[in-house]
Amino acid sequence: MKSFRKRDFPLSEIRHFLEPGPIVLVSSAWKGESNIMTMGWHMMMGFTPALFACYIWEGNHSFTMIRKSKQCVINLPTTDLVDTVVGIGNCSGADTDKFAQFELTAVRGDKVDAPLIRECYANFECRLADGSQISRHGLFIWEVVKAHVATSPKLPETVHYRGNGQFMVSGRQLSRRSQFKPENL
Amino acid sequence: MKSFRKRDFPLSEIRHFLEPGPIVLVSSAWKGESNIMTMGWHMMMGFTPALFACYIWEGNHSFTMIRKSKQCVINLPTTDLVDTVVGIGNCSGADTDKFAQFELTAVRGDKVDAPLIRECYANFECRLADGSQISRHGLFIWEVVKAHVATSPKLPETVHYRGNGQFMVSGRQLSRRSQFKPENL
Repeated sequence: MKSFRKRDFPLSEIRHFLEPGPIVLVSSAWKGESNIMTMGWHMMMGFTPALFACYIWEGNHSFTMIRKSKQCVINLPTTDLVDTVVGIGNCSGADTDKFAQFELTAVRGDKVDAPLIRECYANFECRLADGSQISRHGLFIWEVVKAHVATSPKLPETVHYRGNGQFMVSGRQLSRRSQFKPENL
Repeated sequence: MKSFRKRDFPLSEIRHFLEPGPIVLVSSAWKGESNIMTMGWHMMMGFTPALFACYIWEGNHSFTMIRKSKQCVINLPTTDLVDTVVGIGNCSGADTDKFAQFELTAVRGDKVDAPLIRECYANFECRLADGSQISRHGLFIWEVVKAHVATSPKLPETVHYRGNGQFMVSGRQLSRRSQFKPENL
């Protein structure tokens, strides 16, 4: 599997990787157990602090681990990991050690106890900023407190889920920078 | 500009177009005025009812119109509209009639007073489902009450914003349907 050299990345710029809407892997740890889930329902919510929201279904094994630990890591997989992404989404942490099953490497985080996934292009360490909408909506609002991003390539090829087992793979880059007002960049 | 023939689309399947994370145009109406804004911070939150959340900055001219009317339309532009998307994001409804300025056609909605944008591939009529997080987080939680989607092409080419004036254009399709458990499709 691919291995990436990573560097600290400015928290105010993580939208670059998350706003396009890729499928991510959410890793968590609670009481000596770790788990990974596949997630497509998420959004940016702020630059500074770097806020990020996601929906997690209460039926997921990760739900309680994440709610109780108030932490997680958002990991960004590239297209070469698509079968791993699908596999992780189609089994449960209740009876599967997903790191072992999918031969992924757990790396210790700097700011949270949840493990980073080494084989992903980027890892975003998150602490719960607002849990008030978990019970009502399954909505977790996170502050991203540390970002680790691969030094190369500059643009990862990501997968974006459409439902029904279909993914869209990220395509070409299009710059319209010259048409933006500076304050809107 | 492109024109699409559209049909009613099942609300429980709108993730197909929204979950991949495209830039959308949000149209609104309030007290005889209409407006359009460009938006990249949004996510699916439920199938039935079809829930959809988005972040809107209170500094946007649309913010008050949307908060007061409790309605909007989420319009999905394709790549050919990217200059319109950028233009809409770089001017304000406070001094610009964006439908006129960008030669877009306002179409009456079935369920909301906010106008649909004819030139977009799809239009999702939304009613506010939960406004309790607007003041604290700028977070609007919508129920999509009607979906109009182009009959062709099946897969629109969409643009996904990275910040800094850079867009990712949606790329190829990748099916992993055979690897999914039926209940996870």
